[in-house]
Amino acid sequence: MSLIEALNWRYATKKMNGQAVPQEKVDQILEAARLAPSSSGLQPFKVIVITDPELKQTLRPHSFDQSQIVDASHVLVFAAWDNYTEERIDEAFNLMNSERGLPAEATADYVARLKSMYLPREAQVNFEHAARQAYISFGTAIAEAALLKVDATPMEGFDNAKYDEILNLAEQGLKSVTVLPLGYRDTENDWLAGLKKVRQPKDNFVIEK
Amino acid sequence: MSLIEALNWRYATKKMNGQAVPQEKVDQILEAARLAPSSSGLQPFKVIVITDPELKQTLRPHSFDQSQIVDASHVLVFAAWDNYTEERIDEAFNLMNSERGLPAEATADYVARLKSMYLPREAQVNFEHAARQAYISFGTAIAEAALLKVDATPMEGFDNAKYDEILNLAEQGLKSVTVLPLGYRDTENDWLAGLKKVRQPKDNFVIEK
Repeated sequence: MSLIEALNWRYATKKMNGQAVPQEKVDQILEAARLAPSSSGLQPFKVIVITDPELKQTLRPHSFDQSQIVDASHVLVFAAWDNYTEERIDEAFNLMNSERGLPAEATADYVARLKSMYLPREAQVNFEHAARQAYISFGTAIAEAALLKVDATPMEGFDNAKYDEILNLAEQGLKSVTVLPLGYRDTENDWLAGLKKVRQPKDNFVIEK
Repeated sequence: MSLIEALNWRYATKKMNGQAVPQEKVDQILEAARLAPSSSGLQPFKVIVITDPELKQTLRPHSFDQSQIVDASHVLVFAAWDNYTEERIDEAFNLMNSERGLPAEATADYVARLKSMYLPREAQVNFEHAARQAYISFGTAIAEAALLKVDATPMEGFDNAKYDEILNLAEQGLKSVTVLPLGYRDTENDWLAGLKKVRQPKDNFVIEK
């Protein structure tokens, strides 16, 4: 199946049937998310994978009571860095240089420029930037799920502060950004399953110059 | 090629060889971008496709002089709505309902809730939200390009205000968000081409609960 076919097949599943997604497929979705590009390669976000039924029950009321939170076998929470810090930037570039067998000097000028840009900015501005990177990964995970014929519901409709509290994200320097329950559509009971996918026509979406 | 193989193959190409990407492949990349999900299905962004050599030359100095801007055959600029407005929301839902053969009442409550949430907010908050949606599409376009073995360079390093001015985006209610030049890698002259792709190890990227 091509990605375009997969994107036409997928939809924001409103009712899942409770069937579990095989771990092998979840791993492939997470691998796609991990491989997604990010600004300067910092990967300023993590993915929390929730399978614990009690924890899913706890999160449901803070997710506008959406049933996918409990009917999905795996709930992915994309959480971005709450700020860029010297330590985090250094850690990312240390990994990069060490994996590439390069000395720290190889990226010293670049890292200095990055720090001079990020470190004086307000935490909220840096968080917004980190969150955008998480969205690239989020989009990549959605694409991979569709290619594997795994249903997924991209969700922003949840109480971020409550999620952060329940998942202890603040102490890890993270803030929840988006949620992606993984499972399988319950076609008969999903009001959205039978409706046509609608997108802006190409002429309206693309501007040629 | 699987998406994971494609993501391992791709990298942020620093030097392109000037070879043109066939229009058919560009169209598939744009189609993937168009099919990407967005919050409430609003698709609050557009993609500007630049092929005009003069225009690319004009943009290059406002892109930290990055050569991909002129060596790419197609430069995609993702531009998000500068705000959510009543008209824009209505237009999106009118299209959705008309394509689905549904009356306006089918989504009236949902639309009213959306407006009560978005319309009182500051333009900047709404723009940030729209920009995030553009990033999902951006990620999807990057994935499709890689699957088609087309090189692409995800770019945030450009002068957004200058791009907006040169592309007349303000008068269309848009603000540039990201840039994606499409072309083919010049392996011999690209310093990044031979370097290992580095990502956070899975244990550090994924938190299981």
